[in-house]
Amino acid sequence: MKIAVDAMGGDNAPKAIVEGVVLAAQEFKDIEFQLYGKESAIREHLIDETNITIIHTDEKIMSEDDPVRAVRRKKDASMILAAKAVKEGKADALFSAGNTGALLAAGLLIVGRMKGIDRPGLLVTLPALGGGVNAFNMMDVGANADSKPENLNQFATLGSYYAQFVRGIQKPRVGLLNNGTEENKGNELTKQAYALLKENHEINFIGNVEARELLNGVADVVVTDGFTGNAVLKTVEGTALSMMKLVKKATMENGTKAKLGGLLLKDSLTGLKDVLDYSKHGGGVLFGLKAPVVKTHGSTEKEAVYFTIKQIREMLASNVMRDLVNYFETKADSKEEETK
Amino acid sequence: MKIAVDAMGGDNAPKAIVEGVVLAAQEFKDIEFQLYGKESAIREHLIDETNITIIHTDEKIMSEDDPVRAVRRKKDASMILAAKAVKEGKADALFSAGNTGALLAAGLLIVGRMKGIDRPGLLVTLPALGGGVNAFNMMDVGANADSKPENLNQFATLGSYYAQFVRGIQKPRVGLLNNGTEENKGNELTKQAYALLKENHEINFIGNVEARELLNGVADVVVTDGFTGNAVLKTVEGTALSMMKLVKKATMENGTKAKLGGLLLKDSLTGLKDVLDYSKHGGGVLFGLKAPVVKTHGSTEKEAVYFTIKQIREMLASNVMRDLVNYFETKADSKEEETK
Repeated sequence: MKIAVDAMGGDNAPKAIVEGVVLAAQEFKDIEFQLYGKESAIREHLIDETNITIIHTDEKIMSEDDPVRAVRRKKDASMILAAKAVKEGKADALFSAGNTGALLAAGLLIVGRMKGIDRPGLLVTLPALGGGVNAFNMMDVGANADSKPENLNQFATLGSYYAQFVRGIQKPRVGLLNNGTEENKGNELTKQAYALLKENHEINFIGNVEARELLNGVADVVVTDGFTGNAVLKTVEGTALSMMKLVKKATMENGTKAKLGGLLLKDSLTGLKDVLDYSKHGGGVLFGLKAPVVKTHGSTEKEAVYFTIKQIREMLASNVMRDLVNYFETKADSKEEETK
Repeated sequence: MKIAVDAMGGDNAPKAIVEGVVLAAQEFKDIEFQLYGKESAIREHLIDETNITIIHTDEKIMSEDDPVRAVRRKKDASMILAAKAVKEGKADALFSAGNTGALLAAGLLIVGRMKGIDRPGLLVTLPALGGGVNAFNMMDVGANADSKPENLNQFATLGSYYAQFVRGIQKPRVGLLNNGTEENKGNELTKQAYALLKENHEINFIGNVEARELLNGVADVVVTDGFTGNAVLKTVEGTALSMMKLVKKATMENGTKAKLGGLLLKDSLTGLKDVLDYSKHGGGVLFGLKAPVVKTHGSTEKEAVYFTIKQIREMLASNVMRDLVNYFETKADSKEEETK
């Protein structure tokens, strides 16, 4: 399998990206890496070039660039060349830690949508801290600002396939994020989406789930529109960070007793941090395109790059893309037949 | 000032409600309390009846009742009689820990909207853990499932008046919850709301704020639609609870060292819990009605009841209701003039 890597995207590029790729390349001999970016800067961090090829380019997309304009004008940017490689079949997946908007645009405009998918969505894997499961997927967390009920229905199928094929969950429980658990709850969008999800025989729909229960593992796949999903994801991050700060403050500013307590607890609280560092589950997948397009935070470190490569490898090794393409193509074809 | 209290609403009613009222009645001699509910059950928890009147009724609305149907049919329910007292001018505000949907319906159908307000919203005060402020307001957190841009604009004015008059913040910073901080970010609703907020001269609009920054005190008033606000509020609660559980687990399951650390830290971590227990800031205000209608969690304890009474007292003592009525009436009148 071949992965096209935007070596220049993200705050710590190319160092963190290249070091992460090297970590992954040492472990996964079945991957061929294509690193797009400034050759001399990339080579500084390469210790071994087995299964790694560098494709040099001087141009790159900056975090402050306007996404769509950047994709249209910076035709030789590392991210764009990597996307083109996927489009032309020279690579099977695209990885970048760069400008999120630009990556979404490159995914849509260059890699292209899967037949039968109206709008791809961004899927993340978050830690579950209860319910006997250790993670759940949420989709869409921000690829689309406005969605229609049918988009949510497609996110549900995509997310369910991901949980099943990539994470190995049998019959993933798919829940709709809503403002109450009863069937009649919701806004116009979720009420209509509920009706579609109920009739979607590809998924194991368990009904509405509330935001309060997400981290308790109430569902394996949580379906939501990109605006709400984005707000919820950022609220989880913000609240967890604030709590960690408070715990730290509690140990530092409450005298010797608390300080000693903090020292004794240090190892256990590091474990706590680990649980919240969801980069172990990989990056965000722009899902619904012809090939996996995966992003990580701009501030990503080499470990996160490694875990994301591992996630892409699992996606490519599984049948998830092939089966999804079959499913949505057949569905789209039968719709075309109907309208003839 | 007179407060009509639904003594039968909530899981711990009437005990927690009556005990909370007694606490408040001892401190605030300027309040006359009207307790609506089963007289014998209420009297069990009354130690002193100075400035407390009981209005007996056997009927009450249950948590599982359909809200609108309950309001229409249970005409003698404690919550309904309390709402009617406000409508008829026998009381200045309504407090209940009962069925939220029914309270929203009673507020709308019985107490009635402020002239010029299309949709009242639910306003809460949450703790801020940074930014030099100790709290912020968010509105709407769930009174409406779908909102229009003009509703958000009204929430902004209502929230800003609340922060200024009740919490004493000079020129409260009003932010729009959005999926990015740039002006052009957002879904259709927030983009249009942004344009209105920018032109709203009653408020100090600081632009878009992201969910990740809310607890950092990025704004004094955060404006959002009820669906997103509900999801964000529940995500804060769920994440904070999960983190507290993890901290507890870290101290309990990691051997003697961690256990000792936990013991030494206990007092400091109790402080942490306090910060997150936002009932100190009072309950949720259904804001935009002719009088304050305030709710607390169904599982509310007497302390939360006390703090909510205190909050209602601050609302009544301030000019917030009078000034809001003036502002929106004048606005509504000038609109009527225009359309004549």
